[in-house]
Amino acid sequence: MTTLDQLPTPALILDRAILRRNLKRMSERLRAAGVALRPHLKTAKSAQIGRMAVEGHDGRITVSTLAEARYFADAGFTDILYGVGIIPAKLPAVAELRRQGVNLRVVTDNLAVARAIAEAARVDETFSVFIEIDSGGGRAGLPWPDLSGLLEIARTLHTAPGVELAGVMTHAGHSYHCNTREGIEAVAEQERRAIVGAAEQLRAAGLPCPIVSAGSTPTAMHGRDFTGITEMRPGVYVFNDLDQALIGSCGPDDLALSVLASVIGHYPHRNQLLIDAGALALSKDISAQEFRPQVGYGTIAGATVADMAVVGCSQEHGFVGAGAALPYDRYPVGARVRVLPNHACITAAAYDRYHVVDSGIDGGRTVVETYDRINGW
Amino acid sequence: MTTLDQLPTPALILDRAILRRNLKRMSERLRAAGVALRPHLKTAKSAQIGRMAVEGHDGRITVSTLAEARYFADAGFTDILYGVGIIPAKLPAVAELRRQGVNLRVVTDNLAVARAIAEAARVDETFSVFIEIDSGGGRAGLPWPDLSGLLEIARTLHTAPGVELAGVMTHAGHSYHCNTREGIEAVAEQERRAIVGAAEQLRAAGLPCPIVSAGSTPTAMHGRDFTGITEMRPGVYVFNDLDQALIGSCGPDDLALSVLASVIGHYPHRNQLLIDAGALALSKDISAQEFRPQVGYGTIAGATVADMAVVGCSQEHGFVGAGAALPYDRYPVGARVRVLPNHACITAAAYDRYHVVDSGIDGGRTVVETYDRINGW
Repeated sequence: MTTLDQLPTPALILDRAILRRNLKRMSERLRAAGVALRPHLKTAKSAQIGRMAVEGHDGRITVSTLAEARYFADAGFTDILYGVGIIPAKLPAVAELRRQGVNLRVVTDNLAVARAIAEAARVDETFSVFIEIDSGGGRAGLPWPDLSGLLEIARTLHTAPGVELAGVMTHAGHSYHCNTREGIEAVAEQERRAIVGAAEQLRAAGLPCPIVSAGSTPTAMHGRDFTGITEMRPGVYVFNDLDQALIGSCGPDDLALSVLASVIGHYPHRNQLLIDAGALALSKDISAQEFRPQVGYGTIAGATVADMAVVGCSQEHGFVGAGAALPYDRYPVGARVRVLPNHACITAAAYDRYHVVDSGIDGGRTVVETYDRINGW
Repeated sequence: MTTLDQLPTPALILDRAILRRNLKRMSERLRAAGVALRPHLKTAKSAQIGRMAVEGHDGRITVSTLAEARYFADAGFTDILYGVGIIPAKLPAVAELRRQGVNLRVVTDNLAVARAIAEAARVDETFSVFIEIDSGGGRAGLPWPDLSGLLEIARTLHTAPGVELAGVMTHAGHSYHCNTREGIEAVAEQERRAIVGAAEQLRAAGLPCPIVSAGSTPTAMHGRDFTGITEMRPGVYVFNDLDQALIGSCGPDDLALSVLASVIGHYPHRNQLLIDAGALALSKDISAQEFRPQVGYGTIAGATVADMAVVGCSQEHGFVGAGAALPYDRYPVGARVRVLPNHACITAAAYDRYHVVDSGIDGGRTVVETYDRINGW
C-alpha cells in the first residue's frame, strides 16, 4: 500500500470522498430541477470519473478536444458534445467516430461552417449540430440579444440531408467573475433567458430545438430557475478549486484535488521556503487572485500560519510564503505539503494520472486507486 | 509529406533552421569565451535537440526533473546535472542512475540534506554534489555575499566517503527582468562575482571546487567576462520566445517555436476572433507582458495588423485581438495561424512532440521530422 509519504513528488492527488460528495451534490441538484446533466469532462479527462459523474443520469457528456472524444468513446460513452467551435478540417474525425456509433455532436456559430457541415453531410455522413449563443460571457456564440444570423445558420443546418439541428448551447463564463450569491443568480438568469430566447426564436420560425443546453459550475449550483433549459454542463464542480471556493460554488472543504510536493529548501532571510512544484506542476493560472491575491498559485492545505501559499513559480520551483513567520521546524527539507490549486482544470492537465486517496477511510493517507487522464489534442 | 495545412490543431511547430542558428550562436559564443556549455534541457526536453545542442562540446547537460534525467540517460548522455534542490527521498533514484554509469550530479544549499547525502553514500553509493548559490535572483541557494553555512555544507560533503564535492552553481534568474544590454551585463557580472567568490571561499579553506557553474540565457548571451566560470547553463536560447526577444537575448526572427492553431469563430462586434489554442495549448504564462502588455498570451506570426495577439484564454479557446480592425477576410474560419509563445519552456510542456519544419528549405511549409519530448516527473 503506497502512502502519500512514499509517492514521488510532485504528484496529483484526488480525494475520492470529496469527489463523490461533489458529484452527488450536483447530480441531486439537477435531478431535482428536472434538468439533464451533461458534465463537462474537460476538467476530469478521466473515464473512471466520467462514469461516476453520470451515475443515475443518461450518460451524455461534454468534451473539449477530439482526443477526449476518442478516449471517452473508447470508454463506452455514446452521447458526446464537443463543445469547442468546429471547423471543416475536423469534420472527418467527427464523422469517423459517428460511423462507430458514437453520437458526437458539434458546435458552431458561423454560417460558413454550417454550410461546410451541410456540404460534408451530403457525401454520406451525418452530423448533429448545436448553435452556440453568447449569453454574456463574451467568448464564443452569437451575441444575445442580437441573434441576427441565427435563423440562417439554423435553416442551413436543418435543411441539409443528414444534418440534425440538435439545439442551442451557451456557457455563462462570466459567472466566474462573480463572488456573491446574488451576482451568480443574476448571471444564471441571464444565461437562461438568452438560451431559452434563442430556442424560442428557432421554434417560432418552425425549426426544431430539442436540446437547450446551458451551464457553468456557478450557474448550475446557484441558478434558481431552469425553466426551458433541458440540460446543464458544469465541469469544474467535480473537483472544485480555490477559484470556485472564492466564487462561492463550494465550501472550503470541498476541494478534491491537490498537488503533493516536497520542501526542497529554506530561505528565512526572505521568509520563504521552496517546494518542488512550480509552474509546470501547478500551472501559471491565477484566476482566484481576482478575489483574493494572497492565494498566489495555490495555498498550502492545513497550514497553521496565515496565508501560507505559493507566492511565485519558476519552472520546477514553487516559492512558498506566508502572512507571518514560516514555522520551518514543521516543514523540514523533505517534508511534504499539499497545494490546493488555483484552477483545477489547468493544474490537472500537467499530469497523466490521479493518485486517489479517500479521506473517508483513513484520513486520505494511502493511495487506494489510480485513475488515468487523457491530455493533449 | 504532411504540410502545416494538414496537421491537426493545435500543434507545436519547431523551425529547425532557426533552432540550428540559435544553437550555433550560443555554442560559438561560449567556445570563444573558453567556457564549457552545459545546456539546460528543461526547455527542449528532447534527445534529438539535446544532441544537437552539445555538438562540438563534451556532452554535459542540465535537467530539471528525474524523468528528464532517466530519459536523457537512456539516450546516452552521461554527465547530467539535476538542477533542482535534491531531497533525501530522491537519492535512491539518483543512485540507481549512477549505478548504471551515468554521472547524475545533484544540487543542495542545505546542511541537513548534505548530511543525508553523506549518510546515504556510506551504504555503498557515490554522489556528486554542487552547492547552490543565490547570486541575486532570490530563488534557491545560499544568498551571496553572506555565504555563511557554505563551508560547513562543503566540509560535510567533502569529508564523506563516496561523495564528490563537484563545485558551486548559480542561476541569475533576475536577468529575466532586465531589458537593456547594460542591465543584463550588470546581472551577468554580479552572477560571475557571486559564483567565483563562492568558489574562492571553498578553495581558501582547502576544499576542492572543480566546477564553477553559472548561467541563464540572457547572461550567457551578454556577459562580457567569464573569468573563473568553468561552465554555463543557458536553456531557453534553443527556441527563444517573446520574453527573450523583449529582454534582448535574441532578435525578432530568432523564435524557433510556435503553436499552430485554427480560427474557429469571428466576433467583429468586439474586434476579436477565436482560435483553438487556449490556456492548455499556450499556457497561462505571461512573462513577456512585463515588458510589453500587448503581447498577451502570444502574438500572431506574420500579422499585417498591429498588435495582433492572443489577448485572453479559456481552457481551449484563445481570444485574438489587435490594435486595429481585424482583417477577417484574411482569417476565415478554418484558417491557420501561428502563435509565437510568451514563454517557450512552459508552452512546450503541453505537447508530447515537435512537428519540425525548416524555413531554410521550403519556407517551413512541410513537416520534415518529428522530435519527441519527455514531460512529467
